[in-house]
Amino acid sequence: MIKKARKLGRGVAIVGAGMSKFGTFRGMSGRDLVVEAFKEMRASVDKGFDPNDIEALYVGNLSSDLFEGQAHTAPIIADWLGMIPKPATRIEDACASSGVALREGIIAIASGLYDIVLVAGVEKMTDLPTERVTDTLAAAADAIYELPAGFTFPGLYAAIATAHMKKYGTKIEHFMKVAIKNHDNGALNPKAQFNSSIRDIMASRMKKAEERGQPVPAWRDEMDFLNDPQANPIIAWPMRLFDCSPITDGAACILLAAEEIAKNFTDNPIYIIGAGQASDVALHQREDLTSITAAKVAAQQAYEMAGVKPQDIQIAEVHDCFTIAEIVATEDLGFFNPGEAPKAVEDGIMARDGAKPINTSGGLKSKGHPVGASGAGQVVEIWSQMRGEAGARQVRGKDITLALTHNVGATGGTCVVHIYERR
Amino acid sequence: MIKKARKLGRGVAIVGAGMSKFGTFRGMSGRDLVVEAFKEMRASVDKGFDPNDIEALYVGNLSSDLFEGQAHTAPIIADWLGMIPKPATRIEDACASSGVALREGIIAIASGLYDIVLVAGVEKMTDLPTERVTDTLAAAADAIYELPAGFTFPGLYAAIATAHMKKYGTKIEHFMKVAIKNHDNGALNPKAQFNSSIRDIMASRMKKAEERGQPVPAWRDEMDFLNDPQANPIIAWPMRLFDCSPITDGAACILLAAEEIAKNFTDNPIYIIGAGQASDVALHQREDLTSITAAKVAAQQAYEMAGVKPQDIQIAEVHDCFTIAEIVATEDLGFFNPGEAPKAVEDGIMARDGAKPINTSGGLKSKGHPVGASGAGQVVEIWSQMRGEAGARQVRGKDITLALTHNVGATGGTCVVHIYERR
Repeated sequence: MIKKARKLGRGVAIVGAGMSKFGTFRGMSGRDLVVEAFKEMRASVDKGFDPNDIEALYVGNLSSDLFEGQAHTAPIIADWLGMIPKPATRIEDACASSGVALREGIIAIASGLYDIVLVAGVEKMTDLPTERVTDTLAAAADAIYELPAGFTFPGLYAAIATAHMKKYGTKIEHFMKVAIKNHDNGALNPKAQFNSSIRDIMASRMKKAEERGQPVPAWRDEMDFLNDPQANPIIAWPMRLFDCSPITDGAACILLAAEEIAKNFTDNPIYIIGAGQASDVALHQREDLTSITAAKVAAQQAYEMAGVKPQDIQIAEVHDCFTIAEIVATEDLGFFNPGEAPKAVEDGIMARDGAKPINTSGGLKSKGHPVGASGAGQVVEIWSQMRGEAGARQVRGKDITLALTHNVGATGGTCVVHIYERR
Repeated sequence: MIKKARKLGRGVAIVGAGMSKFGTFRGMSGRDLVVEAFKEMRASVDKGFDPNDIEALYVGNLSSDLFEGQAHTAPIIADWLGMIPKPATRIEDACASSGVALREGIIAIASGLYDIVLVAGVEKMTDLPTERVTDTLAAAADAIYELPAGFTFPGLYAAIATAHMKKYGTKIEHFMKVAIKNHDNGALNPKAQFNSSIRDIMASRMKKAEERGQPVPAWRDEMDFLNDPQANPIIAWPMRLFDCSPITDGAACILLAAEEIAKNFTDNPIYIIGAGQASDVALHQREDLTSITAAKVAAQQAYEMAGVKPQDIQIAEVHDCFTIAEIVATEDLGFFNPGEAPKAVEDGIMARDGAKPINTSGGLKSKGHPVGASGAGQVVEIWSQMRGEAGARQVRGKDITLALTHNVGATGGTCVVHIYERR
């Protein structure tokens, strides 16, 4: 049923990438955040370029409609970037919006229509009162069949988590290990919303309690802290507060160029050699909740196009909107056998200095999850790591020539996977 | 500044097209409407086809988020059409969403990634109370700079209309002539929301008044009727009720195939030989309101790609969300010199039996304007007319081999133009 992935008609490379800081930015609109990301992207282009040479804009965005009361956001962003009258198109596939926007940018260059395309991802989420954000995001689930049952995303991913626990014996502690690892990475990422390790968060709270003369919690280590129902309350069992990615404002920009002109921009472009996208039924219709079929299909397409295998991938940014999502993702991508990712995280294999570093950026969990920008944000990390520019969180002892991003919409209604090569 | 339009790497043809009835359909969701359109499209494919051969779905939709509380609608529609796990991507550029979705489908085939792509457009608008629809649509204007000034779309287009009146001496009666013409066409379109001529609407109201023993209005002709402030109240001067397109539910589907396999589907495919897309600043920033720059740029790209001139185009569906929009569109497309479209409509040149038939479907004005479906709906009319299948509204005495569609987002922040050839 699944057609073998084809080759694109023309090679495409990333020649620049940048992102705004992820966090809470009152008084800034989505369009302002894209301008921040664009400036960072522009500064990343080694040989410089004339922004007037960009021929088209693809914007990934989940719902500026619901978050900002602003539809038709693509031409407004084009205006803010000085790109008028270039074509500007918004792509929406829930939290996979900017991963899919990247795909559309690649396809557009491969078609021969353009040579240079800007891909942006953006979400301005904090204009809404916090208590309304979860309900708003729930629009990305099935509004007819899932929402009337009372589901929001923590509950949907909790269902995935409990299924994984039942089938494979996965423990709550495994989820916590994902959070600890991703915060360890995010602590080294100046663009991250939460750039503190959980150990530091814990120590800071203990210190504050001591300073205030309050009883100092008896946390010996991060696991004690995360097991504390007050410090880490249950959101939707077994997902606790630190299992959930935050509400975030942010944007990211990626500059794409046809392979044959990539070296006009940089001597060190990152080539996109594999691309896959797939869809799935809504969660309530699935027979098995322990994996995401769209991720497996998209990964298969990307691996086939790239001619590589899961074990060849050296680093990956995967969609960890909840800690369980990272476990499922790394199994779906074939990095680990089904049910074996929990042990891998426990053994440190996914750590920055492990055999298979996952989410060196901090992931959505720690870097933040401005939903429409998250897919493009993953690419910014891959760009930095592959070029050896990731600073304190640079993966050591590996010459990274092959990397992957995995971006999921909702509970896997969409998944998009890309594979990157440095030559 | 505007780069010369390139050729696509590979030819693309339309091999099937269909639409749901446009109107008010309580109890049907957007996904249901797409299924209706898909069935019609499927029946239109002369040699039949296996839906499993479709490789990807592009869905144009303005805001299922705001209208239905449903984001991430593309994979849900893919599921409803039995297309899982094929990639499904939503495209949003306000009321140009499905025109741009068509463009993305064309680009995707041209890239070599796919051979067969389904393009859908859909909007389910009537779930919201009527009084909230205008406010909801206003999200497609600039929410920061235009909406606080009190603008909604009738007001924005009224500003365009008054500018045209001032610069060119255009009269309210010219707008009315557009409405009369488009209702004349829509009266012959069984899929149209308002499939009555204005003459028939007038006669029916007079008859009803007579039957009820009420005073019979003294309307001698359509112009009397449209000049009556009670029958045709002012919405935003000079735009009156019959100058405005309606609130509509509807969907349309287009099946695209690579040129080299098009004849597997039909001996009579329609080839897409020109495509253009452009953006513009929001209306409040423009120096001149009497034309839409994005339309002129998109048209120039499409003409250059197709190697044809405005005078070569035999019929066109243009974006008449308001009657003034059709006047501006036909000037922007180069069919008439600036300021000369009002006389052209007066002289019957745009009528179905005129020299340049415009909106033979009834246009958005009479056929209906389910915003995200309107661009795809235009293509359904072109498909029917070019193949001689438009029934009672078939343009006579012309062998139509060259046609055009013009689809606008908001007040021209986006415009997308396509040119079609029958060989």
